Amino acid sequence: MATSAELLERVRFNGDGLVPAIAQQWDTREVVMMAWMDRPALERTLATGEATYYSRSRREQWVKGSTSGNTQQVRAVLADCDGDTLLLLVDQRGPACHTGERSCFDAVAVHLQAES
Amino acid sequence: MATSAELLERVRFNGDGLVPAIAQQWDTREVVMMAWMDRPALERTLATGEATYYSRSRREQWVKGSTSGNTQQVRAVLADCDGDTLLLLVDQRGPACHTGERSCFDAVAVHLQAES
Repeated sequence: MATSAELLERVRFNGDGLVPAIAQQWDTREVVMMAWMDRPALERTLATGEATYYSRSRREQWVKGSTSGNTQQVRAVLADCDGDTLLLLVDQRGPACHTGERSCFDAVAVHLQAES
Repeated sequence: MATSAELLERVRFNGDGLVPAIAQQWDTREVVMMAWMDRPALERTLATGEATYYSRSRREQWVKGSTSGNTQQVRAVLADCDGDTLLLLVDQRGPACHTGERSCFDAVAVHLQAES
């Protein structure tokens, strides 16, 4: 288990100062969305437990659910081996997707033939 | 359920021609890694069922496990609501991470205090 400072030390933001963050429902392990964080958004997430992202189109921080009410309470933040991707274990209230779906990945799926 | 052509139509590659792809073990739902795909890598993944990525540092396609043997057989490819992130449901053979860990997200974890 690491501290927030150790995690922040580890994270490698890209050339735009951003890191991708995958949000996964902590108990069902459903992946519900992926969004981007800048350092202040990550710091706010760690400090408040409210998933906070950075909108590349609006160029501003946004707190997930602040308008929709579909908040994400964050239980854990994990960084990957090279520190350039985050995985958030969250408790998603209501649908995660702006379309009203539980997950943003409910949109299009291609099933490949299993070989085994 | 969509066809590969429908999925390819849907995907929005970024300015570098890449899209992030999250790999999740299909049965345990563990998120094991995130990597990038260009269009040829995605097409190869869909055609062969072998997870194929694009290395931004080496600037070349790589087939997961081609040297390590730790292959990813892909069962499904999902695109998110705005088509700029992929989720692969895979059958990961051996560890996914080059460190020898099962998941690349086994490196650093911060646990936040649950409010409830």
